[in-house]
Amino acid sequence: GHLRRHQGNTNVRVSLPAVCFVWQIAMIILFGVFIRYDEESDAHWVEFKREHNITSDIENDFYFRYPSFQDVHVMIFVGFGFLMTFLKRYSFGGVGFNFLIAAFGLQWALLMQGWFHSLDPATGKIYIGVESLINADFCCAGSLIAYGALLGKVSPVQLMVVTLFGVTLFAVEEYIILTLLHCRDAGGSMVIHAFGGYYGLAISWVLYRPNLHQSKRLNGSVYHSDVFAMIGTLFLWMFWPSFNSAITDHGDGQHRAAINTYLALASSVLTTVAISSMSQKTGKLDMVHIQNATLAGGVAMGTAAEFMITPYGSLIVGFCTGIISTFGYLYITPFLEKYLKLQDTCGVHNLHALPGMLGGFIGAIVAAAATESVYSAEGLINVFDFEGSFANRGVGTQGGFQAAGTCVAIAFGLVGLILRIPIWGDPADDNCYDDEVYWEVPEDEESIPPVLEYNNHMIHKHQDM
Amino acid sequence: GHLRRHQGNTNVRVSLPAVCFVWQIAMIILFGVFIRYDEESDAHWVEFKREHNITSDIENDFYFRYPSFQDVHVMIFVGFGFLMTFLKRYSFGGVGFNFLIAAFGLQWALLMQGWFHSLDPATGKIYIGVESLINADFCCAGSLIAYGALLGKVSPVQLMVVTLFGVTLFAVEEYIILTLLHCRDAGGSMVIHAFGGYYGLAISWVLYRPNLHQSKRLNGSVYHSDVFAMIGTLFLWMFWPSFNSAITDHGDGQHRAAINTYLALASSVLTTVAISSMSQKTGKLDMVHIQNATLAGGVAMGTAAEFMITPYGSLIVGFCTGIISTFGYLYITPFLEKYLKLQDTCGVHNLHALPGMLGGFIGAIVAAAATESVYSAEGLINVFDFEGSFANRGVGTQGGFQAAGTCVAIAFGLVGLILRIPIWGDPADDNCYDDEVYWEVPEDEESIPPVLEYNNHMIHKHQDM
Amino acid sequence: GHLRRHQGNTNVRVSLPAVCFVWQIAMIILFGVFIRYDEESDAHWVEFKREHNITSDIENDFYFRYPSFQDVHVMIFVGFGFLMTFLKRYSFGGVGFNFLIAAFGLQWALLMQGWFHSLDPATGKIYIGVESLINADFCCAGSLIAYGALLGKVSPVQLMVVTLFGVTLFAVEEYIILTLLHCRDAGGSMVIHAFGGYYGLAISWVLYRPNLHQSKRLNGSVYHSDVFAMIGTLFLWMFWPSFNSAITDHGDGQHRAAINTYLALASSVLTTVAISSMSQKTGKLDMVHIQNATLAGGVAMGTAAEFMITPYGSLIVGFCTGIISTFGYLYITPFLEKYLKLQDTCGVHNLHALPGMLGGFIGAIVAAAATESVYSAEGLINVFDFEGSFANRGVGTQGGFQAAGTCVAIAFGLVGLILRIPIWGDPADDNCYDDEVYWEVPEDEESIPPVLEYNNHMIHKHQDM
Repeated sequence: GHLRRHQGNTNVRVSLPAVCFVWQIAMIILFGVFIRYDEESDAHWVEFKREHNITSDIENDFYFRYPSFQDVHVMIFVGFGFLMTFLKRYSFGGVGFNFLIAAFGLQWALLMQGWFHSLDPATGKIYIGVESLINADFCCAGSLIAYGALLGKVSPVQLMVVTLFGVTLFAVEEYIILTLLHCRDAGGSMVIHAFGGYYGLAISWVLYRPNLHQSKRLNGSVYHSDVFAMIGTLFLWMFWPSFNSAITDHGDGQHRAAINTYLALASSVLTTVAISSMSQKTGKLDMVHIQNATLAGGVAMGTAAEFMITPYGSLIVGFCTGIISTFGYLYITPFLEKYLKLQDTCGVHNLHALPGMLGGFIGAIVAAAATESVYSAEGLINVFDFEGSFANRGVGTQGGFQAAGTCVAIAFGLVGLILRIPIWGDPADDNCYDDEVYWEVPEDEESIPPVLEYNNHMIHKHQDM
Repeated sequence: GHLRRHQGNTNVRVSLPAVCFVWQIAMIILFGVFIRYDEESDAHWVEFKREHNITSDIENDFYFRYPSFQDVHVMIFVGFGFLMTFLKRYSFGGVGFNFLIAAFGLQWALLMQGWFHSLDPATGKIYIGVESLINADFCCAGSLIAYGALLGKVSPVQLMVVTLFGVTLFAVEEYIILTLLHCRDAGGSMVIHAFGGYYGLAISWVLYRPNLHQSKRLNGSVYHSDVFAMIGTLFLWMFWPSFNSAITDHGDGQHRAAINTYLALASSVLTTVAISSMSQKTGKLDMVHIQNATLAGGVAMGTAAEFMITPYGSLIVGFCTGIISTFGYLYITPFLEKYLKLQDTCGVHNLHALPGMLGGFIGAIVAAAATESVYSAEGLINVFDFEGSFANRGVGTQGGFQAAGTCVAIAFGLVGLILRIPIWGDPADDNCYDDEVYWEVPEDEESIPPVLEYNNHMIHKHQDM
Repeated sequence: GHLRRHQGNTNVRVSLPAVCFVWQIAMIILFGVFIRYDEESDAHWVEFKREHNITSDIENDFYFRYPSFQDVHVMIFVGFGFLMTFLKRYSFGGVGFNFLIAAFGLQWALLMQGWFHSLDPATGKIYIGVESLINADFCCAGSLIAYGALLGKVSPVQLMVVTLFGVTLFAVEEYIILTLLHCRDAGGSMVIHAFGGYYGLAISWVLYRPNLHQSKRLNGSVYHSDVFAMIGTLFLWMFWPSFNSAITDHGDGQHRAAINTYLALASSVLTTVAISSMSQKTGKLDMVHIQNATLAGGVAMGTAAEFMITPYGSLIVGFCTGIISTFGYLYITPFLEKYLKLQDTCGVHNLHALPGMLGGFIGAIVAAAATESVYSAEGLINVFDFEGSFANRGVGTQGGFQAAGTCVAIAFGLVGLILRIPIWGDPADDNCYDDEVYWEVPEDEESIPPVLEYNNHMIHKHQDM
């Protein structure tokens, strides 16, 4: 993989429409065969309510989860999308390709997650409701994280393939981790962030470009692109409490997950600022750190947010991961590029892979330390879902399985190493990070008329001399 | 209308304040006479609850609809507003005038819709709650869509008049379509999009400027204005499920409308990308398509979203309308301008008028195809509101009325043809699309100091030669 | 304070990390000692529900308040943050330092408000839930408002100190106003806006810089920074109904507060546009007014929003405060700077201090005018919380206390006059409003290649001549 030449045939006029059309038609056919409304979104709900003695429409899961769903949806499309607009000339590709692959990924996710988690054996159908939509958005997030490592270096066709496989791998690892190992991972430290981070890093390693320095002039931000990226950062940061609480238990589960995430994120901001300032001779802050490492607390609380980690425990998690993530941007990313041939455009290692892995182990420790006095007997059963064939599992065992789940997530991410994406329209080494390759880019002369006029004026004056 | 000269008297110092003050004072007086809190927002609610055996405050409609209301509110102000910032030098006018006319329009809408839909004959009052606010926002949307066709070519005073008449026409057509014809149109394919689109096109046709090419240099985007417009696109796209479900039935109605819209929108993205890429020799994507046609699925699901259209049916709707809308931007808009003398700045024909009309007919077909087995007997009554004097209407008849309703919406939009707005401060043909006309625009020299310095340096060097 | 020299030692490499680390560690320790989950976010909720005969998880306060919380959260971080990006070269500092001080402030607020309002004497603990998070965000808002007066003139270390004292003062004044005086102030006209506004003005007065004109070139906007600021404006404007209703009574209280605020804000927009247009010879609008004064209606409804002020009453409040606020930007801010030595970067006097004070008095009048016929007997008790030791307070007395509360809020704001912040890394007079001081700012040459190339070309042609 490392030696191939990039000839710069970036014409995707056949391949991109072909992929979009064929895959979308496939989605329609598969949805036709498999996907139906669940009992809470079907017009039969009026009968269902009566049969189940549900007295009010407000008991419909829609009202428990839809506000959280919308927050998650904003994170997926505006959060991830705008976070990737920071490059000076790849903002279209950042927000636009994120839009494309998420729109495809969520459809494929509804199918894949449906087959693995909610296929009704009696009817052969998958029944979807608002929780399915949240899970589909979550599933996309894994591939969007991977995109962060590849930003500016791959074609939209390659990204579609990365998403197709990413969603597929996600559904399998999620089935193993959540169903077979019976782990808890409400906000996806393991199944989303550790998996997505390592998946992206693995693919980026395979696609290593020794001559990427030829695009160095474009691998950076300009003033306003950094401000655009802050839109992404802030919507991710603000709505992360919704992300980690979106599919937790009704009632105290959602409530606690939101509080814990809110606190961890606040703590991350302060330690990120501290390390960022310390790292410069003059104490200046680096926008890369503020845009990314401030979010590490949310990633690391993805598993433990629904547990009784305590408010100060949440602060400690944010405190540590803010430091670790910022150090990652300062030292690990350059190290990975120099010594491991790993080019990670957005630093997903520092924001997702590492804090996700830590979040998995934090979850394992907090689970293993759970007690009946803290959770109450019923609370312990509710939080860890110790029911059915898992009724007799102890918290120590649960902790062990949580740790194992984290390893499974990383292992599935590393499957990306064997995913050798063909050269489907990817840019040459000297036009990476450049929207010109895949987008009609407007000429910008109109935005700066005063200078042109001023120069013409001066130059004419010269000519008159 | 086509022959008048534009002299460029764009001073609105008297007319704009006069319109704002007089109309706002009129609103205050009319609200004083007519508008009151409804029983769920009045302090008497505590008594109302007891009288109606409502056991919990959570049954207040506020909790069913407020999250959707806020999403719709974001669509109206940030969605529509930022979508119109794409022009290189009309971003202030895009987002600012949208803000102004929506803020006026929603007040007038509360009155107009109140008089037509909820005037209590006993008291002569209109009682408002959260659903009224949603409907008022919806009503504004019609005029904001019309603004899209006029963007850059009219004065704020003219826009206020367009909104005054737009809201008035909307309330009448809505009354005819929803009340008299008893159509269902939860997300407003007919009453909002088809009406608003044709209303804007009709006014734009009347205001045709043969010399508009004189402003051609400003009728386009720059790099960062396209990124700003993506903020509008994404907030519209993400929150469209809330738009189409905001006023549907509690429970399964809201739930299903959100799912259907979510799916149709996802599908639109893929076909938009496909057609956009195919349309360029080198397969490059056009930001105009991504910013607009990706939303066509949401428009087209405005009527059918609450029906049992099935998940794959939603995907098909998004699939087709994404294609049609992108083709519209490629071929229909240039055709309309060249042969029909119709200048449509934002292409509202392709995003609203056409997909809205299609959405109306899709709704008619889906309604006509409804069966008791799919909806359940009670479900059918709930979804189509077959009660009172409409208890015996069959689904076939309903389908016919839905189709008729679509035609009524278009007809009302075309009333814009007789709305001859006087020349109230509109820009000359050679300063359309220019914020300088109505805004104090900051000088931008500070944003580009390196060039100025560099040039000065070079020029001084010349002078020294 | 006025005579000290600014030497420009802006190196915060020791002080900023030290403050962040030490204070964050202090937060962790204090949270460990004091903060616990409340009964609705604790895993014991399952038992609590049974003991209190709560039949559904939907009764958990999370579902009443979380959507409002998220809207408030967006206002704090995106609303306030982006509103402060309007300066041409201080957007990083605007949104970035807002992020930092809010993330610290909300933690300190949970402690301070907890000690004053909800410390359980039996256990010595503070129990937090979603309402605590909203209150913490509110408490931060006071200091963020103060930041608006100081924008561009202080270091992040100084801002952290401003926030530490701001949150502390807030908690005390809030305790006096809401608990001792038993005022109602749901949206914080008094406790947030009047306090925060005067607090910022007081500190800015102490930090007066006679030579600030040396940074005049940077004290203004560029085209795109004004568009960024509109993101802040619109998210504040759209979500203000959630702000004013977030902690009001369940049911009609939240419902009515949202409606009143929605109406007042709409009205403010029209009068702001009117005055802004009138103030220019040619009727052009000023972005400063649109970005700020349109919000005055929300500030002024902070106290009265939950009362039965009537819909037209709300419109009147917005009408008047839109006018007053715009006049403030036109005449009062220049007056304050010239004659009172008060430099107010964002004009917080006009948006927060003055409308907040007015809002307090409007609340007093509306409270004093309350009657049983309008509120119902029970409604009156609910809205004004006339229970316990306040059971016999009449509405007239309540009005008097509301007015007194407004004075207390202003008085606490003026305590800022004795808060003499040392020269901790603040910028010199000639590099205020400049991100270069505290941020690694990217060089922007890549954003404007056409001009450079064009110029080089022209210049080379010259050289060839």
